[in-house]
Amino acid sequence: MAGSTMGRLFQITTWGESHGKAVGVVVDGCPAGLALSEADVQELLDKRRPGSGKYATARSEEDRVEILSGIFEGKTTGTPISMLVHNKDHRSADYSEVASCYRPGHADYTFDQKYGFRDYRGGGRSSARETIGRVAAGAVAMRLLAEFGVEVTARAVQIGGVEVVPGQDPMEVEVPLAPGDSMGGVVECRVKGMPAGVGEPVFDKLDALLARAAMSIGAVKGVEIGDGFAVALATGSANNDSFSLDEEGNVVKETNHAGGVLGGISDGDEIVLRAAFKPTPSISLPQHTVTRDGEERELIIKGRHDKIVVPRAIVVVQAMTALVLADLLMENAVARLDRLKGAYGLPGLTP
Amino acid sequence: MAGSTMGRLFQITTWGESHGKAVGVVVDGCPAGLALSEADVQELLDKRRPGSGKYATARSEEDRVEILSGIFEGKTTGTPISMLVHNKDHRSADYSEVASCYRPGHADYTFDQKYGFRDYRGGGRSSARETIGRVAAGAVAMRLLAEFGVEVTARAVQIGGVEVVPGQDPMEVEVPLAPGDSMGGVVECRVKGMPAGVGEPVFDKLDALLARAAMSIGAVKGVEIGDGFAVALATGSANNDSFSLDEEGNVVKETNHAGGVLGGISDGDEIVLRAAFKPTPSISLPQHTVTRDGEERELIIKGRHDKIVVPRAIVVVQAMTALVLADLLMENAVARLDRLKGAYGLPGLTP
Amino acid sequence: MAGSTMGRLFQITTWGESHGKAVGVVVDGCPAGLALSEADVQELLDKRRPGSGKYATARSEEDRVEILSGIFEGKTTGTPISMLVHNKDHRSADYSEVASCYRPGHADYTFDQKYGFRDYRGGGRSSARETIGRVAAGAVAMRLLAEFGVEVTARAVQIGGVEVVPGQDPMEVEVPLAPGDSMGGVVECRVKGMPAGVGEPVFDKLDALLARAAMSIGAVKGVEIGDGFAVALATGSANNDSFSLDEEGNVVKETNHAGGVLGGISDGDEIVLRAAFKPTPSISLPQHTVTRDGEERELIIKGRHDKIVVPRAIVVVQAMTALVLADLLMENAVARLDRLKGAYGLPGLTP
Amino acid sequence: MAGSTMGRLFQITTWGESHGKAVGVVVDGCPAGLALSEADVQELLDKRRPGSGKYATARSEEDRVEILSGIFEGKTTGTPISMLVHNKDHRSADYSEVASCYRPGHADYTFDQKYGFRDYRGGGRSSARETIGRVAAGAVAMRLLAEFGVEVTARAVQIGGVEVVPGQDPMEVEVPLAPGDSMGGVVECRVKGMPAGVGEPVFDKLDALLARAAMSIGAVKGVEIGDGFAVALATGSANNDSFSLDEEGNVVKETNHAGGVLGGISDGDEIVLRAAFKPTPSISLPQHTVTRDGEERELIIKGRHDKIVVPRAIVVVQAMTALVLADLLMENAVARLDRLKGAYGLPGLTP
Repeated sequence: MAGSTMGRLFQITTWGESHGKAVGVVVDGCPAGLALSEADVQELLDKRRPGSGKYATARSEEDRVEILSGIFEGKTTGTPISMLVHNKDHRSADYSEVASCYRPGHADYTFDQKYGFRDYRGGGRSSARETIGRVAAGAVAMRLLAEFGVEVTARAVQIGGVEVVPGQDPMEVEVPLAPGDSMGGVVECRVKGMPAGVGEPVFDKLDALLARAAMSIGAVKGVEIGDGFAVALATGSANNDSFSLDEEGNVVKETNHAGGVLGGISDGDEIVLRAAFKPTPSISLPQHTVTRDGEERELIIKGRHDKIVVPRAIVVVQAMTALVLADLLMENAVARLDRLKGAYGLPGLTP
Repeated sequence: MAGSTMGRLFQITTWGESHGKAVGVVVDGCPAGLALSEADVQELLDKRRPGSGKYATARSEEDRVEILSGIFEGKTTGTPISMLVHNKDHRSADYSEVASCYRPGHADYTFDQKYGFRDYRGGGRSSARETIGRVAAGAVAMRLLAEFGVEVTARAVQIGGVEVVPGQDPMEVEVPLAPGDSMGGVVECRVKGMPAGVGEPVFDKLDALLARAAMSIGAVKGVEIGDGFAVALATGSANNDSFSLDEEGNVVKETNHAGGVLGGISDGDEIVLRAAFKPTPSISLPQHTVTRDGEERELIIKGRHDKIVVPRAIVVVQAMTALVLADLLMENAVARLDRLKGAYGLPGLTP
Repeated sequence: MAGSTMGRLFQITTWGESHGKAVGVVVDGCPAGLALSEADVQELLDKRRPGSGKYATARSEEDRVEILSGIFEGKTTGTPISMLVHNKDHRSADYSEVASCYRPGHADYTFDQKYGFRDYRGGGRSSARETIGRVAAGAVAMRLLAEFGVEVTARAVQIGGVEVVPGQDPMEVEVPLAPGDSMGGVVECRVKGMPAGVGEPVFDKLDALLARAAMSIGAVKGVEIGDGFAVALATGSANNDSFSLDEEGNVVKETNHAGGVLGGISDGDEIVLRAAFKPTPSISLPQHTVTRDGEERELIIKGRHDKIVVPRAIVVVQAMTALVLADLLMENAVARLDRLKGAYGLPGLTP
Repeated sequence: MAGSTMGRLFQITTWGESHGKAVGVVVDGCPAGLALSEADVQELLDKRRPGSGKYATARSEEDRVEILSGIFEGKTTGTPISMLVHNKDHRSADYSEVASCYRPGHADYTFDQKYGFRDYRGGGRSSARETIGRVAAGAVAMRLLAEFGVEVTARAVQIGGVEVVPGQDPMEVEVPLAPGDSMGGVVECRVKGMPAGVGEPVFDKLDALLARAAMSIGAVKGVEIGDGFAVALATGSANNDSFSLDEEGNVVKETNHAGGVLGGISDGDEIVLRAAFKPTPSISLPQHTVTRDGEERELIIKGRHDKIVVPRAIVVVQAMTALVLADLLMENAVARLDRLKGAYGLPGLTP
């Protein structure tokens, strides 16, 4: 395994390069009997497509997903769901220069160091097109979570230092940006309806796996749960969320500094995650760099690139979050004997 | 697996509760032939012991590690290294109240929700004593990394909002703190000498696994690599690290905003990680909470607790980082055919 | 993960149903820099296609493999190799009866019990077409093994109780067979050139993982290594393989009762594995069975089926063996410090 | 991971050498709420201890298990169960010769080839004492299975070529055996009460994982499910098990050639597995071998060894089978949506 697989029970394996024949994903472990259609997947995928917004790449791809296996009569069969999107619109000529030269902020140099060479066309495996598989799989995870009343949403909260207000189209945020330059931002993901008890208490903590999932998205350099870095400045008396009872006698927290996770396990409250995205490294300004042959030079990157990656990244954060939640929801189903018995139709957990 | 295992090749499994007989770890996959002694492990373990500093718990434990297997004639044999520390000084009486009551900011409520009941003595499995196994295993990882010239260091950079200057004893930082309250802080870990090419490009990115490892430490709520959240405010032209050649003709970066990781793969530069710790939730001030039986009440936590957890957490961040690096260094050894051939003594990678 | 993934470092995930759009496999973890073409894969795949032999199914499939990712300029890139074969010639009408009725010896009943329903067309996921992914991946593994001088061969040694002599076409063996009935057989796999030291000493023993791999092939009911079940009748003095030195001073075994594996680790000798295949359960004779609706009935299976599955299964055993060997060869590369150093071009193992 | 871990959800990691301080196991993933005591584990462990029988080693070990974690108030807590048995009676002097010399049939040579050196005392990691951890973990698995009405039994069916009749003490079988020599045998394991539907359909087939588990026991060279190798001689019409309905209308098989597994999934019938054990390689007769320094010599092995390993191995086969079943029973709990819902107390599977 070279790291293209994530998840223990709800497990996904992505594959594909930007300018290969296709990109795709295999989802193994999705429970049988879940209603699922290509339309469910396509709907989420469409959210990561290059939009018509002013900061987005002009590359146009239909990105039509094809489900090749694992569905029968409209429901998952319990066997692997293989999904694929063909790569259509690639002009390899645009990338010829990249073959011999290391783009600053990109993975060109590190891929060469790791593998000895690389598929340089369009970023190859490190292209943002790899996230197509993640989003397609995330759509399946979201369908599964919906069966348990769990809803995952995400939005940009900051682009280029400018706050994005709820409901605002991230494509329409006014950001001062020099010609040819790029900007980063922050995406926030919120999860409602997660039952308490999900997440494993040591290395597979819910927040630990969320952090890994978010940080595995190309441009992410920081991840926070709940109050995040602000907790370092808080006192315990201010940061602790008091417990109380709601009108129906359920245990609730009076605040949610914890972001819905205590000791790595969901506490029933809203789960809150934020991920910081760096500016797209592909800028049209001249940059100093080095060639494969060991010569210094100036580089101006051509081709079509997002100036601000955040709007298209929102759905990727959403998908990655859903994938972690689905996996841990399944793992938690076997964490105690009464749950396990309930799965087999024996007298189990009292709801 | 319920999440007590981390790592693919250099794999650790921790076990043990705060007030059980012992806590420990099994390290499976450490290469044979590595010089290792109990003293190597003890030296790192001593750094997480409650110190004599003014913010530390008064609980005194010797925390002597015992290596039970996997070493022969002073060297690792390639078989599992089982290490154990006996729990000695536990006064269970201190924790009687915790049995019936959910401490705010702790995992009491979520453990009960997950498992139906919990070992409430001293935090049970969610106690900071669980980190003993992590640190012991981390010591082995650091020994392995040292063979490749990799050095992992960590220090507190901020405690209770006060900057800690390099070289300053974190125990001696002056922090305004109300009686009975607690404060958080930030730990930074730096890695020197990591060869370029380490880390897998998709889900097992070096930074993704570091983020997971750091976030799996009890009180951590945020993780950053390199410039971290600041990248969200930067432009691409400022954030991209230009490549150039040093005097010997090696590729170097002129800046290190990336924190030593590009596309999830080490770039040969210093690796920089920061983790934000929340204030210890165990405070001596009255808090509002709920009992297991569903009644609201005020709680004042007794017992011995760290007011500021950061000084003792430094070595845990260091250990977790080392564990991820050792694992990925090993995985990278088989990433290309010439490396794999080199491992078998065949003509392989040209250094 | 629902069991469609095998291998730790050289890892494969198969997907697809008999009558879905396609079947395929993702190989993640193949080292970069290995020369590989579609022709390499096709060559092995062609060996599992329905032949023109008298015992084979008349279903004709071209089974052309398409490599969708992971290859660039004729070499593996270190990223996932996605391979796919489209399903072309399926006449679903043949299988209508199977939808409502449990075929004896097949997985119809158990799939229904497991998943609540099943894709009944052509056996769905339990069809022999699932082995296409295994064989395609096995071709990659064999290419990798060839780089280390390891050669994997397989042949039928017994069909329907009749010994197959080396070199004999298994399709041409004369086997007394009643019309409409089927027969089983035994496949033997031999591996030459495997270096000593491969295999992990406890649960991932070389022979344990070979047994799992072989037994995971649909119709296999028994697996032997070396002398296999005959060892139960032997004495230690007869069964132990004495060590001696060959003319060049290398350690060799004078006999090979062990089948090339001692303590779960390859000993440098030829590896010998045998797998027993049951007769194809699809027979044209009337059989007593039960319907989904809980009624007893007689069933006569229509459709095209192999009367003797062994000839087409040979290459599957070969592929599964190669996959295990490639994975463990890679894992062994990090089993000792000098190997690990050698992978990095440091002074390592003395050949 | 170097292969000392087995299982995905009910996961065990064994550690320890024959002459180290202790041997042990960590069980991670056992559901919370299972009643478990040291006595439960000790009872099974006692069955693998050297007995007083005429074929057994004279080495006397108390083999008292100590549970160090994961149990609270008599029930599993859902956290890792660490179990340990101290090594008491080892006379290292007996093994001095083994340090320099490769015992035929043992793993001395292969360990040296793999790791560069080895802990030669008493077989080190490849000692039969490693099975203590397996049996201790197996006892936990059997407790879990009992909650679902699953019963695992094992017995010797053949020792030294002599049939063992049911109920006969395997220690009392009369076997012609030359002084100093040893004999093998066959152990059969039967599982009653396993619900249909357990096992994953491709690589993690129930029979595939059973084969791996059995073959991972030191001396096993062959594994069969149901009719095993005899199926290679049978016709489909004879080997297929017809389905019919019992008096209560349940689907049953009229025969059980399949050994309770169809398509890798349990069919509700009795599961039947057989494992062939080779004769103990430690014999007192002179053997030809080679030293570490590359010289041929005669070797006579001293020390205390079982002449027939089968009687003590019975419980190991039983434990390994139980471990696989527990793991797959848990995995099957999340194989379909209605099971998963049932685990959470939602309307789920109709029993």
